[in-house]
Amino acid sequence: MAAERLVVIGGDAAGMSAASQARRLKGPDELEIVAFERGHFTSYSACGIPYWVSGDVGARDDLIARTPEEHRERSIDLRMRTEVTGLDVSGRRVRALDRESGEAYWTGYDKLVIATGARPVRPELPGMDAAGVHGVQTLDDGQALLDSLDALGTEGARRAVVVGAGYIGVEMAEAMLKRGFEVTVLNRGEQPMATLDPDMGRLVHEAMDGLGITTVNGAAVTEILTGADGRVTGVATDAVRYPADVVVLGIGVEPETGLAREAGLPLGPQGGLLTDQAMRVVGHEDIWAGGDCVEVLDLVSGRPRHIPLGTHANKHGQVIGSNVGGGYGTFPGVVGTAVSKVCDLEIARTGLREKDAAAVGLRFVTATIESTQRAGYYPGAKPMTVKMIAELRTGRLLGVQIVGREGSAKRVDVAAVALTARMTVEQMTALDLGYAPPFSPVWDPVLVAARKAVAAVRGAGN
Amino acid sequence: MAAERLVVIGGDAAGMSAASQARRLKGPDELEIVAFERGHFTSYSACGIPYWVSGDVGARDDLIARTPEEHRERSIDLRMRTEVTGLDVSGRRVRALDRESGEAYWTGYDKLVIATGARPVRPELPGMDAAGVHGVQTLDDGQALLDSLDALGTEGARRAVVVGAGYIGVEMAEAMLKRGFEVTVLNRGEQPMATLDPDMGRLVHEAMDGLGITTVNGAAVTEILTGADGRVTGVATDAVRYPADVVVLGIGVEPETGLAREAGLPLGPQGGLLTDQAMRVVGHEDIWAGGDCVEVLDLVSGRPRHIPLGTHANKHGQVIGSNVGGGYGTFPGVVGTAVSKVCDLEIARTGLREKDAAAVGLRFVTATIESTQRAGYYPGAKPMTVKMIAELRTGRLLGVQIVGREGSAKRVDVAAVALTARMTVEQMTALDLGYAPPFSPVWDPVLVAARKAVAAVRGAGN
Repeated sequence: MAAERLVVIGGDAAGMSAASQARRLKGPDELEIVAFERGHFTSYSACGIPYWVSGDVGARDDLIARTPEEHRERSIDLRMRTEVTGLDVSGRRVRALDRESGEAYWTGYDKLVIATGARPVRPELPGMDAAGVHGVQTLDDGQALLDSLDALGTEGARRAVVVGAGYIGVEMAEAMLKRGFEVTVLNRGEQPMATLDPDMGRLVHEAMDGLGITTVNGAAVTEILTGADGRVTGVATDAVRYPADVVVLGIGVEPETGLAREAGLPLGPQGGLLTDQAMRVVGHEDIWAGGDCVEVLDLVSGRPRHIPLGTHANKHGQVIGSNVGGGYGTFPGVVGTAVSKVCDLEIARTGLREKDAAAVGLRFVTATIESTQRAGYYPGAKPMTVKMIAELRTGRLLGVQIVGREGSAKRVDVAAVALTARMTVEQMTALDLGYAPPFSPVWDPVLVAARKAVAAVRGAGN
Repeated sequence: MAAERLVVIGGDAAGMSAASQARRLKGPDELEIVAFERGHFTSYSACGIPYWVSGDVGARDDLIARTPEEHRERSIDLRMRTEVTGLDVSGRRVRALDRESGEAYWTGYDKLVIATGARPVRPELPGMDAAGVHGVQTLDDGQALLDSLDALGTEGARRAVVVGAGYIGVEMAEAMLKRGFEVTVLNRGEQPMATLDPDMGRLVHEAMDGLGITTVNGAAVTEILTGADGRVTGVATDAVRYPADVVVLGIGVEPETGLAREAGLPLGPQGGLLTDQAMRVVGHEDIWAGGDCVEVLDLVSGRPRHIPLGTHANKHGQVIGSNVGGGYGTFPGVVGTAVSKVCDLEIARTGLREKDAAAVGLRFVTATIESTQRAGYYPGAKPMTVKMIAELRTGRLLGVQIVGREGSAKRVDVAAVALTARMTVEQMTALDLGYAPPFSPVWDPVLVAARKAVAAVRGAGN
């Protein structure tokens, strides 16, 4: 019997990365690892689901980084279709429910990793459970949507309504467009991509128009309309009824922390678990948490923030596994970088939006420039808009947003590193970024934005 | 008459950026600006010449950012085809030679900007002046090459030899390949792209093979062979004679500082002018220098370095113009970032190579990883190799080199910012870089390299 027992709740990115990394550092004689996953899959790329639905990715299994069998080969006692329904912190044990057999049991731990992820926001509206209404959070969701599309066949009306215009919404809009649907996106907010400021969101809106995707802003869904057969027929807002053969919900997610809440673990303002930099749950020496169920430190604002993203979940898992395995790792925080695309339109952001900066009492200036991602004379040069937000007086970079064509989005990484290093926009103007005509104008668009931001800081006085 | 007189030597990126920025800050009543350019063109993109030769860029004028007339409209007294042949620092005057009329004259300055650029290295070999042997440094060079190619016509043997396998060499190899030539690159060094370590250069070599470009390493050219008509027929090395219908020289450049040397201005180890961060020539209050004729501070090694690149020249000009115009600007230095491509192969580097680090007495570890630029399951995912060099013990990032396909090169910018901020590879592992399947695997390749570099630093002990 191993010296210690690690229990992991949740078999996706954060949980299984933690388990794998702990196993790399400690063999089965030293550490027993038991992992519970309530679903059918482990370690998969939920971010890839829109591309599987669109047909860009051929098969579901392409999205699976590691199967249950592969985990078990590494001496991880992975129990699939088993949900953890109770957590007894003082007794150091969890209650597991095997969803196949119905068997329930308590099992003890020395160390615990909570990686319960996030659950989609599903507003309580009439018709939400109708056939043809689909979330796209899990592989099971994706499969259900694809089965539903197959059942629709290729004949007759092919109208898709996507509810929500965040990352998942716009990516699913692309996916449905690629599958030949007429796509309408119903967006509650002022502009699509609420993770951008509205002036940049407007550029996304215009580009989506150009791609043939109809976006309706300020559209609050009141009802999912259904036919006599119980299948969806449309989506109603206060004002309009939009006919639909299929409805995709892309409204976002919230931390899945019911278990943690009941157990009295500390939660942040957005409902995510609070941890220290070692990803240890605050006040609990032997409990770690990571992935979509935690809030992390926003290095720019200094506030905790819930950012469900696979890339963070993997880093959390790596850090947790190192610490559980007797090594040492830290996750210092995030700056809020995200990239996405709708067909050939690329969208990126990092740091604070105007309203984020205002909310934490920062005074700031903004600068927006239009340039091209390549030298203007080079084939394929296309417009790229960069918005930069800098603190008044100090000139510290606060955030960057980019909307442009191919080759635009990943430029946000320059700003992500600059934010991490707490650079000023003045310092950024001197950055030695790669230049050659196929890759950039002689002044990289990020530098052009920085120069304009410097002028704005100087011009604004105090 | 204006209160002050500014003389600018050299009408390309650095000189005319300086003139334009100074003019923005001071009107003609305050500042008279006289600029001398010995060639036919101003403010053009020499970096674009390979793409003009290849046909990717349709017309020479596409490469010209601003014509002489446009400069003159901004009250800059630009004197074309006029070479500055003497500099009298104590008398504050320059000697100008009008190459059209033959007229020579001295003219005074209050403030001077030296932006004389670089000249191509042309080894003294028999046959170097033969018809069909071309440099590609200036627009005139590019036009001469294109005229030569037109004269060759489309019939008969079409063999091009490119001498040199640096940026210009490989870009010209692509250009000649695109024009239908059989291309042989003669490379004096161990591997092409000597700005990379040889292990990364080897990847470039293999990829060039795959593109149908023959690269001969360790090839020291001894003679340009010519026919009875005086036209080039081939290139000889000690060992082999390579037939050629056209020869392109891409051997690199050196600072054009004969004038400065004669005037007793301070030059660095590579022959470039030495300036402070304001781009003022060391010891000379009223003389500034910028562009390809200066050495700049390498922020990683702390040594001066000659890096002829249009993007630096533009920044220098901006800084000089601000200072001359009564504002304030600085150019803190470079980290040595460069990107290039050969067809769909992308090449990037920043910071120190192994031999650079060794030369300044740094002890280091290296880590090389292979990944893909997109999620492995996303269409168009292609290999990308990242090499990272980190200082022993401290783990400070020293350099990054990248060879990969579309979407690889500009990732070097992340390392460029990290070098500027003097980050450790450990700090880099936590960078919040943009992730979505079309743009990156869940672990960005730069982060994968950083993780491996951390392990190398830890594993190497002291």
